[in-house]
Amino acid sequence: MLQVEVAWARVLGTSLSLGDWVPSLDPVEVEAAGNPVLPLVSALRARVSDPVHTGLTSQDVLDSALMLLARGVVERVSADLGRVADALAGLAEEHRSSVMAGRTLTQYAVPITFGLKAARWLVGVLDALEELEVVSRNLPVQCGGAAGTLSRAASVVDPVAAASAFAGHLGLVWPGMPWHTYRAPVTRVGDALVRVCDALGVMAADLLTLGRPEIGEVSEGAVAGRGGSSTMPHKRNPVLSVLVNSAALQTPQLGAQLHLCAARAVDERPDGAWHAEWPALRSLLELAVVAASQAAELVEGLEVHADVMARRAAGVAGELLAERGGGTDPASYLGAAESFVDEVLKRWRDDR
Amino acid sequence: MLQVEVAWARVLGTSLSLGDWVPSLDPVEVEAAGNPVLPLVSALRARVSDPVHTGLTSQDVLDSALMLLARGVVERVSADLGRVADALAGLAEEHRSSVMAGRTLTQYAVPITFGLKAARWLVGVLDALEELEVVSRNLPVQCGGAAGTLSRAASVVDPVAAASAFAGHLGLVWPGMPWHTYRAPVTRVGDALVRVCDALGVMAADLLTLGRPEIGEVSEGAVAGRGGSSTMPHKRNPVLSVLVNSAALQTPQLGAQLHLCAARAVDERPDGAWHAEWPALRSLLELAVVAASQAAELVEGLEVHADVMARRAAGVAGELLAERGGGTDPASYLGAAESFVDEVLKRWRDDR
Amino acid sequence: MLQVEVAWARVLGTSLSLGDWVPSLDPVEVEAAGNPVLPLVSALRARVSDPVHTGLTSQDVLDSALMLLARGVVERVSADLGRVADALAGLAEEHRSSVMAGRTLTQYAVPITFGLKAARWLVGVLDALEELEVVSRNLPVQCGGAAGTLSRAASVVDPVAAASAFAGHLGLVWPGMPWHTYRAPVTRVGDALVRVCDALGVMAADLLTLGRPEIGEVSEGAVAGRGGSSTMPHKRNPVLSVLVNSAALQTPQLGAQLHLCAARAVDERPDGAWHAEWPALRSLLELAVVAASQAAELVEGLEVHADVMARRAAGVAGELLAERGGGTDPASYLGAAESFVDEVLKRWRDDR
Amino acid sequence: MLQVEVAWARVLGTSLSLGDWVPSLDPVEVEAAGNPVLPLVSALRARVSDPVHTGLTSQDVLDSALMLLARGVVERVSADLGRVADALAGLAEEHRSSVMAGRTLTQYAVPITFGLKAARWLVGVLDALEELEVVSRNLPVQCGGAAGTLSRAASVVDPVAAASAFAGHLGLVWPGMPWHTYRAPVTRVGDALVRVCDALGVMAADLLTLGRPEIGEVSEGAVAGRGGSSTMPHKRNPVLSVLVNSAALQTPQLGAQLHLCAARAVDERPDGAWHAEWPALRSLLELAVVAASQAAELVEGLEVHADVMARRAAGVAGELLAERGGGTDPASYLGAAESFVDEVLKRWRDDR
Repeated sequence: MLQVEVAWARVLGTSLSLGDWVPSLDPVEVEAAGNPVLPLVSALRARVSDPVHTGLTSQDVLDSALMLLARGVVERVSADLGRVADALAGLAEEHRSSVMAGRTLTQYAVPITFGLKAARWLVGVLDALEELEVVSRNLPVQCGGAAGTLSRAASVVDPVAAASAFAGHLGLVWPGMPWHTYRAPVTRVGDALVRVCDALGVMAADLLTLGRPEIGEVSEGAVAGRGGSSTMPHKRNPVLSVLVNSAALQTPQLGAQLHLCAARAVDERPDGAWHAEWPALRSLLELAVVAASQAAELVEGLEVHADVMARRAAGVAGELLAERGGGTDPASYLGAAESFVDEVLKRWRDDR
Repeated sequence: MLQVEVAWARVLGTSLSLGDWVPSLDPVEVEAAGNPVLPLVSALRARVSDPVHTGLTSQDVLDSALMLLARGVVERVSADLGRVADALAGLAEEHRSSVMAGRTLTQYAVPITFGLKAARWLVGVLDALEELEVVSRNLPVQCGGAAGTLSRAASVVDPVAAASAFAGHLGLVWPGMPWHTYRAPVTRVGDALVRVCDALGVMAADLLTLGRPEIGEVSEGAVAGRGGSSTMPHKRNPVLSVLVNSAALQTPQLGAQLHLCAARAVDERPDGAWHAEWPALRSLLELAVVAASQAAELVEGLEVHADVMARRAAGVAGELLAERGGGTDPASYLGAAESFVDEVLKRWRDDR
Repeated sequence: MLQVEVAWARVLGTSLSLGDWVPSLDPVEVEAAGNPVLPLVSALRARVSDPVHTGLTSQDVLDSALMLLARGVVERVSADLGRVADALAGLAEEHRSSVMAGRTLTQYAVPITFGLKAARWLVGVLDALEELEVVSRNLPVQCGGAAGTLSRAASVVDPVAAASAFAGHLGLVWPGMPWHTYRAPVTRVGDALVRVCDALGVMAADLLTLGRPEIGEVSEGAVAGRGGSSTMPHKRNPVLSVLVNSAALQTPQLGAQLHLCAARAVDERPDGAWHAEWPALRSLLELAVVAASQAAELVEGLEVHADVMARRAAGVAGELLAERGGGTDPASYLGAAESFVDEVLKRWRDDR
Repeated sequence: MLQVEVAWARVLGTSLSLGDWVPSLDPVEVEAAGNPVLPLVSALRARVSDPVHTGLTSQDVLDSALMLLARGVVERVSADLGRVADALAGLAEEHRSSVMAGRTLTQYAVPITFGLKAARWLVGVLDALEELEVVSRNLPVQCGGAAGTLSRAASVVDPVAAASAFAGHLGLVWPGMPWHTYRAPVTRVGDALVRVCDALGVMAADLLTLGRPEIGEVSEGAVAGRGGSSTMPHKRNPVLSVLVNSAALQTPQLGAQLHLCAARAVDERPDGAWHAEWPALRSLLELAVVAASQAAELVEGLEVHADVMARRAAGVAGELLAERGGGTDPASYLGAAESFVDEVLKRWRDDR
């Protein structure tokens, strides 16, 4: 929020230098104001004599600050998704033809390859990266004043030019109009991050199944000190998969919360729906950052037991090949699996 | 689903002519199979001797049929949103300078114009139209066979060419790979429709407030027989606003349901998450179609009482102009309101 | 709704005899009124000359009818949960000492018995039955007139006595006051049914895992024609578990919808939140009825492969007994498992 | 969590004295373990030489600690709800006959009294208090060991007696069996707190409407420094109502999250669903505590403008009395409103 106030001060012609000052806000005053901006501005005005905040409203500062936070999160998530994509591409390539049992409704279906599975996960990650890229390019500054007309700002500056300059100083976009009560900028960030966790979550859930000891087709990489049990010394829990899976069970409801707030963003500033956005957005940003980082470590360290896959597929070949009428070699009935892998790897190379 | 089977039969080289035949499926058989496709295929095979369904799996038929349904819904919603946009543009233009009280956290803020309010709603509708356009262009066919390898199809046709032709016959897109367990095609439809209802819902909620009798700044158009009460003969309820508002209170949870299913789309076909998509998607499609149609009628028939707005703004000018330090003419303190209206109207004209 | 109007007519002193008449309502009129009651009352008044509906409002009829529906659902669900409880008690008793591997975070932990697992599921079912019993005893009639004062009814009858009699005719409870905008009667039904599906869902999810072919410790009972695949003739899908699991993935959001509507039940009748209750409640009622019925069939037909459980536990005894420091007989390290089973069975017997 | 470990040590025969020691846990170790218990136990064992934690699993400690947290929250919320109830009872009594316009679907209906409105809110609060009382009496200790059999504990103590003593030391209940994968204890807390916020939220939403300046029938009590605007010095925002309303928009989704986790609590410890409970439960506990406290301050300080209500009702008497066929005195058409108030006040007195 300080960064936002500094940028606006610059628009007003002032160059604030705050050093590493971090104001300490009184939670009671924050609650009394209904948000932290008023106490922040008071603290700022007590510190500097230059005009600050003139023409802005609390929501301008808070919304712009949230977009800066979102930008940082999108960058970190994108970087980690890039690692996930590269690792998955490596697995897809290496295991392009590693035969394993396909499973539908939990039961054996026809043969697939592990490379196909990795390629399917990779499609989700590549799509998520593209969406984050679009979101990232369009994060808007908030600039509207008390009721979205920039009335007060208009008394000291050209309001539209000021809004554009404000956006420029912050590296955000001026969308042509304030969005105090039009919350698509928030729901777009939200939906994109929910989709990130959808893509990572389904991968984690699949890995949890494949890593069950009775199946044993993958393992999480062993890291000293991770996955221990407080009672069973031998145990190696798939902690990363569990945590990514856990994140993906939470993000849909958080995304819904943002949409509900968008649908209730009434008047020129809503009577509760704006405040209800903050915890959901904050939780969503945190979960996405952490899940992407954990997913990168998970995929980079993944141990794929292609031999176990192959033995199992051979052992149940009769079932896997029943659709064809029988047979003993699952590798002979892979359909387009390998060409699908190639297709996705081509896209991954093109996207880099 | 029949249309999908016919298209696939054509890929297999068969021209089915089913006339207006509609098979009657036994709900008990549908439950026994877990979905309606197996009974449908049985009925179809009992009727025609040509090869049908060969190489497809139930999910290919059901997912493709859902995409056809989604296409129809997106078309109808887009048409109605176009009506909403045109009507809002008319209101924004007519009331570009119609002064009214701005309200934040339910209390008077600074003056705005009703045109600005209409323009803000219009931005949401124009964005939603753009997103529907993107969604509509990318609705994918589902084509993967038992476990997403097209293994069975590959024994009778070139699988990738067949999938492309299949998409072509249905007017859908072949995304290069099956998406049995990658559900972004569904969540993209879902998110876009949730955003439609966000945009319409906030407008309906605003109109409900402005139409309260103590405020009286707008009214729903009077239509004989609508909005009546079962006990109070004089009453004219804002039924359209109520219903659109109601839709927007429901759609966020439905969108969340689709994401949750996406995050749990495990194995080569999930053990419940696919089935859990259908009711949510169906409800969302219905709500969006109905809400868009009701919103069009609502905005086209809206009565705006600019005189009431002006009188109120004049009456509370002291409060509305307190930010400036006082005054009596709210119209003198509109900031960039009118230029924001012009900006949005320009976009509306460009988008047509 | 007819049954409600008939009961109210009786309160007014009229004995309507409608035979098996079912009025046909025009959807356009229903939308115009915002709900189906006004058209229903018009049809009723066109048919009978006696006074009907006098003093009621639409919401009185609709809410009371929903409670009647809820009662029927609670009865059916309770009956099916009773079957589930009996079958689980049978399994708990039979497999009280059937050793199997305990699994935490997907990995082997210490030994348990299948009877313990069944007993745990049974606790959930018994608790759900108790909650349904409480809900069922407290389903309230709705009776408030236009704005919850019974003003119109008061002109023809003693309003409080009338409300009590109304409740009596319908077998519902008069809660002392209308609840037009106090929706706990709806959320209580909702929460209880969500808990039913939580309890059934976790059982279904466990059975899906235990029934994976690599684990093979349980199977759904074979029923001719069920669980077939449209492409793989050999396949036997665990359709009942999949559908119950699917229901449990949907009900939490439906319950949330009801709470959201409760929190927005403003004024003397809300401007959208009441209408938004209906589809969620209807979906929840349907899912609960179907899931309970499917769960009963699932548990009654369940095949438990205690031999597979025992062989696996013996095979991985080293891991299962690592907590104790090693050993070869998992049955020697069951802690309180069997006494927990006895405790639950005692409760089941007492509850009958 | 320390309190839980101390209680269990006592069961093991050790009296730990930790003073005000608070261990500092490394977040990296917490993530590596998947939860904070393992690092906590390590820190504890480094500090004391007595046996600690023996026989417990991480989940025993975390779940029991969550129940202790929940108990504290339930106590605080109940105390504040008691204040809300008393203040509402006062308002209901004072305004038993204060006539105001009833409003349905935002439009004038028939007359009501403000006392009736207060009494309706009071019913919700009294019901919520009763439910919290039930929840509070039944908060269970968690005690199961690695997989819910108390196998390790059984080697050093009588497991069932130990679990009972453990519960006793913590003031919790021993439910007869561990509930590692049966999460009703959590969803019961969740549902009760969601209902608290439903009841408070609908009151806050009503007050926001009645406090709109065009309506002006209530005001939030003025408190120096509260409700200020960062740009408009005259403004007094209804901050408490806004924040309570905001809480009620968030809690339904949090409750749904807990149910979803309950439905996915698989195996003997789930692979993500347990971890996904924590943030939702924590947010819900926080929101409920804060909302109840704010609601108490809100209702205690509420200014009711009965004169404005009376003037408005008289001014629109024609509409309010249209149901009766006309008239000029709204007070003459209150039906059972006052007797409903008396009924609720009687219950409030009885419940004290």
